[in-house]
Amino acid sequence: MIILGLDPGLGTTGWGVISAEGNRLSHIANGQIKTDPKIQLASRLLKLDLELTDIMLEYRPDAAAVEEVFVNSNPQSTLKLGQARGVVLLGASRSGLEIGEYSARLVKKSVVGVGKADKDQVQAMIKILLPGVKLAGPDAADALAVAITHAHHRKRLGLASS
Amino acid sequence: MIILGLDPGLGTTGWGVISAEGNRLSHIANGQIKTDPKIQLASRLLKLDLELTDIMLEYRPDAAAVEEVFVNSNPQSTLKLGQARGVVLLGASRSGLEIGEYSARLVKKSVVGVGKADKDQVQAMIKILLPGVKLAGPDAADALAVAITHAHHRKRLGLASS
Repeated sequence: MIILGLDPGLGTTGWGVISAEGNRLSHIANGQIKTDPKIQLASRLLKLDLELTDIMLEYRPDAAAVEEVFVNSNPQSTLKLGQARGVVLLGASRSGLEIGEYSARLVKKSVVGVGKADKDQVQAMIKILLPGVKLAGPDAADALAVAITHAHHRKRLGLASS
Repeated sequence: MIILGLDPGLGTTGWGVISAEGNRLSHIANGQIKTDPKIQLASRLLKLDLELTDIMLEYRPDAAAVEEVFVNSNPQSTLKLGQARGVVLLGASRSGLEIGEYSARLVKKSVVGVGKADKDQVQAMIKILLPGVKLAGPDAADALAVAITHAHHRKRLGLASS
């Protein structure tokens, strides 16, 4: 199956596409969608939606995996993140994808083996798990990590992997 | 011009449609979109998007007006609200509507004349400003209030009212 991992953000949304066949994971693509803070909020959300739609049309994922939100102590940041996350979840839902949501802790545990890994450890493990991957940036790495988590989680649940 | 006012929320989104021609405001429709808390978040956001799309197709608004968010002290509530608000702003933006965002304080000041009016005062004034209106509920009333605010605000800016 093809899994699209997403790390939503209003300024930068990371995305990563992997293929999971049984135990075998492979990298397909990753990138970062950026929106201009100088344009109107609604236009930024529209740009995010359009680019995400393009990615789903190009890679035709079967499932989307989205990181659960670390609720920031800054309410304005939480609100911005929520708005981007709503658009991302809507896009996946509109395309009829299976959707998994995973906490940052579970993602780190899945990828590195411990829930408190730092960003460098996550990126190092992604390069081992997906040989040859070139990361577009830290948010793209986080998106690939949540896609890998979804692959592991499905397998643990005994769901079909094709 | 036809203005769609929106008071976004994950559980209940209020909406209200008015016509504004010069100084003359009239009520067209109002209602509340509800989503089931027992279904998956992404499905709730999809239902919100589909119902909002239906409303925009039925009433063909020229503009959308959305209340700015009161950032809650509960970060989980802020996140939920943000997700619904992102979907609502995206829907309006995708339909090419002019979009206005107004603080709750400005909405109250526009409708009642003071920034600290309570809900009952707002509802009473809406019934005076839009004779014959039957309110679907408090969130629909708030949506009509923000639509009225947009009509006043455009007029003050000297924008065309047709």
